[in-house]
Amino acid sequence: MKHGRPSRRQLLQIGAAVGGSLLAGQKTSALENNPRTLGEPLGPYSERSPFEKAVRWRRESKTPETGSSFTPLHDSVGSVTPSALHYERHHSGIPAIDPARHRLVIHGMVDRPLSLSMADIRRLPSVTRLLVLECGGNSAGEWAASGADVQRSYGLVSGSEWTGVPLSRLLAEAGVQPRASWVIAEGADACRMMRSIPLAKALESSMLAYGQNGEAMRPSQGYPLRLINPGWEGNTNVKWLHSLKLTDQPYMARDETSKYSDLMPDGKARIFTYAMEAKSVITFPSGGQTLPAHGLYELTGLAWSGRGRIDRVEVTTDGGRTWIRAALQEPRLPIALTRFRLAWRFDGQDALIASRAIDETGYVQPTRAALIAARGTNSIYHYNGIKFWSVRSDGTVTNVEG
Amino acid sequence: MKHGRPSRRQLLQIGAAVGGSLLAGQKTSALENNPRTLGEPLGPYSERSPFEKAVRWRRESKTPETGSSFTPLHDSVGSVTPSALHYERHHSGIPAIDPARHRLVIHGMVDRPLSLSMADIRRLPSVTRLLVLECGGNSAGEWAASGADVQRSYGLVSGSEWTGVPLSRLLAEAGVQPRASWVIAEGADACRMMRSIPLAKALESSMLAYGQNGEAMRPSQGYPLRLINPGWEGNTNVKWLHSLKLTDQPYMARDETSKYSDLMPDGKARIFTYAMEAKSVITFPSGGQTLPAHGLYELTGLAWSGRGRIDRVEVTTDGGRTWIRAALQEPRLPIALTRFRLAWRFDGQDALIASRAIDETGYVQPTRAALIAARGTNSIYHYNGIKFWSVRSDGTVTNVEG
Repeated sequence: MKHGRPSRRQLLQIGAAVGGSLLAGQKTSALENNPRTLGEPLGPYSERSPFEKAVRWRRESKTPETGSSFTPLHDSVGSVTPSALHYERHHSGIPAIDPARHRLVIHGMVDRPLSLSMADIRRLPSVTRLLVLECGGNSAGEWAASGADVQRSYGLVSGSEWTGVPLSRLLAEAGVQPRASWVIAEGADACRMMRSIPLAKALESSMLAYGQNGEAMRPSQGYPLRLINPGWEGNTNVKWLHSLKLTDQPYMARDETSKYSDLMPDGKARIFTYAMEAKSVITFPSGGQTLPAHGLYELTGLAWSGRGRIDRVEVTTDGGRTWIRAALQEPRLPIALTRFRLAWRFDGQDALIASRAIDETGYVQPTRAALIAARGTNSIYHYNGIKFWSVRSDGTVTNVEG
Repeated sequence: MKHGRPSRRQLLQIGAAVGGSLLAGQKTSALENNPRTLGEPLGPYSERSPFEKAVRWRRESKTPETGSSFTPLHDSVGSVTPSALHYERHHSGIPAIDPARHRLVIHGMVDRPLSLSMADIRRLPSVTRLLVLECGGNSAGEWAASGADVQRSYGLVSGSEWTGVPLSRLLAEAGVQPRASWVIAEGADACRMMRSIPLAKALESSMLAYGQNGEAMRPSQGYPLRLINPGWEGNTNVKWLHSLKLTDQPYMARDETSKYSDLMPDGKARIFTYAMEAKSVITFPSGGQTLPAHGLYELTGLAWSGRGRIDRVEVTTDGGRTWIRAALQEPRLPIALTRFRLAWRFDGQDALIASRAIDETGYVQPTRAALIAARGTNSIYHYNGIKFWSVRSDGTVTNVEG
């Protein structure tokens, strides 16, 4: 097991790889690309370069208000997702909410029911956390067959810096009654998305978030208020949050019975499988990309776990015979996207590449075969198998069947 | 010196403050704000809510290609700045660069001059760092008089997650000759912005950044390639970078002689004053805002230092007689915006509030008077004095003269 840092010999090989363009009186031509004409004026709000085209992908649909749209992970750099490209999973479209009229009610088994405006909430003591958010249904297609590219097969995961109020603070204000053990969270979208959250989780780490990546969250992420349950499947992180009801039992809502439960091989179903397990995927090189030449590349990807920090990520380039430890970007924060990197020489030989994540609990991301052996193939949710890509001698990269 | 965490008594006071809206059959009316109609469909790219209006501010100008535009710090949450709202300081406008045609040349006193495409650079081993970037001229107006709001007086500072290649890697490829001691960095804007960087800094921590906050940086931030010198004044972080020339002396370029130097009381000028010292400012409540009622608020702001981590931030609410330690958002990363927070009761008494930052070197942010005693009033750059706001009995917040 070698560390992912290139040796001095590798470093010189990088030079050979990129140095085909050794300078020979080329400075003038480099300048010619950038003529001395005044550029655009300073402005109030900056957009992307028109040369940048990354967008979310979604299936064509006659009901475009329900479905998923996938983050372009193949274009990702670093450890956060731009808010504009955060994955979406909606059930009845994105409501247009005026924050001045929005209220959050906290009621049910509490001593002092509360109805709070956004101004009330924004006055309260707040916290900021960098967190991964993954749809319970991310990679659902992988149960049947390996998807062709990383966006469509692993793209229902994103990372953001969330800011908001610890839910425990507001529950203390409301006065939770001794018999209460569940919090029923409901969104203000047309379907009134509803999930049952154990009180213990709500007291431990749930947040009422209003900020994302330094500003108010986008409407597609729950503006003006979202319940954030760190490490738990996306669906429990109820968007457009308008009601929290304290109860002594779960509600068996539609989205925790007909959906977001896991049908096992014996015909029984797992329910309330909240935590997302450790998972990783190589984002470069990945399906649909092409390596333009032989030489050294930075192989890179993302790892995360709903149960804590990523402890290490191992990468294979020979189909799983040997595994090499990748470098992890610091700081490694709990329940956050963790960028991994490995300098890798592509010499024109076919290569089968994959990553596996190990989190701080010791959990190891399983192979697809191991996952199916345990869970069968009736499941939709919580797929976290190891994903292989095939790099062919001509530099093309594809998915691998089976 | 007390820690900034509210006591149980304060917590109950929060309840009293926000609980004027105690629920009395209000759940129905809360729901009425959000009718059960289908929302907007899923989309490829998300914009802000139309209710969110924060933009950068700039002076009206007949030459809008040169000047500064200021980040709306009063609207900031968390520890990063949205890329669209990152401050700007341009000298000849924002060039429109096709990344497929852009090249970086590394030449001068090197054994192997290099001309690199963006594709070459993006193959190389990369790093990601959350860093503050501050214009050397941020708060320049404060030398003469205290500015009216936090955006216009302290808003030439922003924080981003930058991704790119350590410059040391490429200098190793190029083979720096023994007599070289400076790197002359030049941008591809019309004015060919040029700064002289000591080789020691370039080898220690400079980055060639292409990624910002998870995607390619915006054109206004240097797309497709920017030199990042962690902790150093913004001007040295040359945007639209197209040339690095190794030399044995600095170039005494226009922007390090006529500008970005500090005229001292004795008539001599400091030059090459690269590092930004520790600084902080309260963003809420700040000038132009109004507290709508008495009660508990979260007083919050940002602190940073070009020399390392913020060690602590102290807040006064009585004009500097007593200072209370604020809570700092973790993780505290070196040379990054650090959010501080303090629960504070506004009881209708006039209050004079301010923050002071202390960094890990032990440096204490000075008062305005101490800064002027040392530097006089001829300076434009590197103002980092403590900023007071006056909260009046009616809840209005203003700047404080003198």
